[in-house]
Amino acid sequence: MRTAKGFEINTPAFMPVGTQATVKTLSPQDVLKAGAEIILCNTYHLYLRPGHKLIEELGGLHKFMNWEKPILTDSGGFQVFSLKGLVKITDSGVKFQSHLDGSSHFITPELAVEIQESLGSDIIMCFDEPAGYPSDLDYLKKASDRTTLWAERCKNAKKNDMAALFGITQGGTNPALREQSAKEIVSIGFDGYAMGGLSVGESASLMLDMVEVTEKFLPENKPRYLMGVGTPEDIVGAVGRGVDLFDCVMPTRNARNGALFTSRGRVNIRNAIHARDASPLDPECPCETCTGYSRAYLRHLFMADELLALRLNTLHNITYYQRLMSRIREEISKGTYASFMDGFLNHSPQGED
Amino acid sequence: MRTAKGFEINTPAFMPVGTQATVKTLSPQDVLKAGAEIILCNTYHLYLRPGHKLIEELGGLHKFMNWEKPILTDSGGFQVFSLKGLVKITDSGVKFQSHLDGSSHFITPELAVEIQESLGSDIIMCFDEPAGYPSDLDYLKKASDRTTLWAERCKNAKKNDMAALFGITQGGTNPALREQSAKEIVSIGFDGYAMGGLSVGESASLMLDMVEVTEKFLPENKPRYLMGVGTPEDIVGAVGRGVDLFDCVMPTRNARNGALFTSRGRVNIRNAIHARDASPLDPECPCETCTGYSRAYLRHLFMADELLALRLNTLHNITYYQRLMSRIREEISKGTYASFMDGFLNHSPQGED
Repeated sequence: MRTAKGFEINTPAFMPVGTQATVKTLSPQDVLKAGAEIILCNTYHLYLRPGHKLIEELGGLHKFMNWEKPILTDSGGFQVFSLKGLVKITDSGVKFQSHLDGSSHFITPELAVEIQESLGSDIIMCFDEPAGYPSDLDYLKKASDRTTLWAERCKNAKKNDMAALFGITQGGTNPALREQSAKEIVSIGFDGYAMGGLSVGESASLMLDMVEVTEKFLPENKPRYLMGVGTPEDIVGAVGRGVDLFDCVMPTRNARNGALFTSRGRVNIRNAIHARDASPLDPECPCETCTGYSRAYLRHLFMADELLALRLNTLHNITYYQRLMSRIREEISKGTYASFMDGFLNHSPQGED
Repeated sequence: MRTAKGFEINTPAFMPVGTQATVKTLSPQDVLKAGAEIILCNTYHLYLRPGHKLIEELGGLHKFMNWEKPILTDSGGFQVFSLKGLVKITDSGVKFQSHLDGSSHFITPELAVEIQESLGSDIIMCFDEPAGYPSDLDYLKKASDRTTLWAERCKNAKKNDMAALFGITQGGTNPALREQSAKEIVSIGFDGYAMGGLSVGESASLMLDMVEVTEKFLPENKPRYLMGVGTPEDIVGAVGRGVDLFDCVMPTRNARNGALFTSRGRVNIRNAIHARDASPLDPECPCETCTGYSRAYLRHLFMADELLALRLNTLHNITYYQRLMSRIREEISKGTYASFMDGFLNHSPQGED
């Protein structure tokens, strides 16, 4: 996949989440070293603080955060609709109150695109209405219809040729609605297609079913992005169903809780079993954390509330995810993905709780 | 100054503080890049957590924290005597309760040396009794006498030839006691001499007076270490009075509060004046923070409670201190230190509150 500015992104790809213009605890150099070729930033957060106009005035988000490679910005929809009780939705847009200071804001599809263009995003996402899980059919339909309406307005609102615009399909866990939404969004025509409103409480298998239902109606030659997913297992399963692009806070958030992904299974670095362990976190991992420090040191840092713990943990988890994507691409190119997927999903070490 | 393991330390030198086997927020590579040639770790903290025996079992402190260059460990005295109300002092040692879990511990001069030898410290400090400020003459004398008694026992307890042992002089703010303490400690004979119990509440000028009183009685050919000092101004003043070695939490702690040292004076990165400032924190500084990011971004990170803020701030402040020491060494070698000191102390920009 190639961006308008000429950056090549190897797919399937995982985008670390840099909510507030930083992948929490990491410098951009760390993120690069971990192997990421694209990151995601959150429109909602940056709109509220420090403000997209300020970032534009300072030369755009890439310069602001010192990250030259591609950035995908979400539309803010998911965050806005997560503000339970503070949100008023009409066809024209969404009125909500800032989680920071309670101030009132009104976001329209046009404003969502304008914000993302101000930021200088490489991939702009349409403003959508993701439904929670479970939702009744009436609401699912209403949210899906409004997502289509807004997708048209987003396409019309876009001014910048240096960014791609991705449509988002909805439909919750209703296969017929998923199909309808996919067809409508595809008929509008976008540079890529996302599956939204998933990984919001439904089971992993139901989520993958919805991916299957949706992807059939997406064009072969455009990137497919499964938003907010997921565990390594979710990703491996979704790639098997044709997904190209992922983002999730899991590797970064888990890292800050001491939950680490390794080739030998999950590790909870707080566990006492690591207190005297001189071995690396993951002997197969080339990251700074695994080559420079023992499990005993990582546990010490974590138990002593040292911030370096969060940084080293995050660096490792992001490296783990990027290496997984690299392995996935390799297995696909060798034509051995099916057996890799089977091994990964059914015969991997589980590790600790 | 050259350590027993053959590392050269250019003096005057400033040691960043790595209390719990990490200079807070920084990796050892960051600390190296900032220019530090030696760091300080805290015996008291490491004795309690994770324990010096565990660190020894894992190959020593250098390996544990992935820092190859010299480490000075304080004796734990200062920390133990800061545990107000929980401490019982006799000539044999100090009984205290852990700030972590309330468990009882008894540290003797012999144990303080043993702990530091287990850690594999390059410079071991004698166990001493620093008096607070103000203290009455009776207590100052008692603490000073006990420090001498303990210094002898520390010298006898030391087994390891790969470490230097520094004596600590006391005497509070009483010139006669300072002189007496210095003479007693020097007569025992150590590889270097520290001035302890300063920068504990007395004025900067009184502190420097005590340095002057003490240093006269220290041998010319041994390093002189002013413990826990200080501001850049304190350091410049103390170097003018013959001090070679410093440590202080100021650059790291201030960084985590957004208080930054620059060639243009102090900066409080929280101030609104930086919100739209595209310029670097310090245009004269070559650190990653100053070359990679704007003040506006650093302020955004800080206001958004992003951990990267603390790391970038710390990296800069440590770089500032190391560059100051480098400048100090240069002025000394050019024979222009007196005029540099005058300019630094009397004609420097003050910056923000």
